[in-house]
Amino acid sequence: MITTLVHVWVNPHHIDDFKEACIENHQESIKENGNLRFDVLQDATDPSKFVLYEAYESEEASLAHKETNHYLKWKETVADWMLKPREGYKHKIIAPTDKKLW
Amino acid sequence: MITTLVHVWVNPHHIDDFKEACIENHQESIKENGNLRFDVLQDATDPSKFVLYEAYESEEASLAHKETNHYLKWKETVADWMLKPREGYKHKIIAPTDKKLW
Repeated sequence: MITTLVHVWVNPHHIDDFKEACIENHQESIKENGNLRFDVLQDATDPSKFVLYEAYESEEASLAHKETNHYLKWKETVADWMLKPREGYKHKIIAPTDKKLW
Repeated sequence: MITTLVHVWVNPHHIDDFKEACIENHQESIKENGNLRFDVLQDATDPSKFVLYEAYESEEASLAHKETNHYLKWKETVADWMLKPREGYKHKIIAPTDKKLW
């Protein structure tokens, strides 16, 4: 199992647009085979800062997400709304280890 | 609903000890009323860097976690293993909004 924390800095004029695009991406991503989490988080003190928390059963499932229509649509839609390139940090999952707990 | 991303930098000599203490904290925390997530993540490129991803139904439930025996035990156990004070960042949850998806 693998997780990625994606940090995104959004143009304050496009915060609502960005949220809408992420919710759409979330709704499709959680239907993917191997998806365990696709949480969209907004920083409580800086509304223009977001974190996408994505977890997949395998590296293959994580990579397959990047080939989906909904990911490619999201990527293109939000491109001009980001203040700088997003940053993704991969993590190993220490807990939970039991898939039933996801 | 509220989430906190807690960043922890661990003394390399105590990585396994820290993981063990976090798994124990995870196992008890997910039993708490109002807990939605308690994921323990280890940075894929820096094994001494961890993120705890905690989500609760309410601010009250999140605060109640800090009063539990398992949290207080974890806090005391890991105190000397951290290279510097941990940093917690609160976030609003944009998606999922439906509790059934947690």
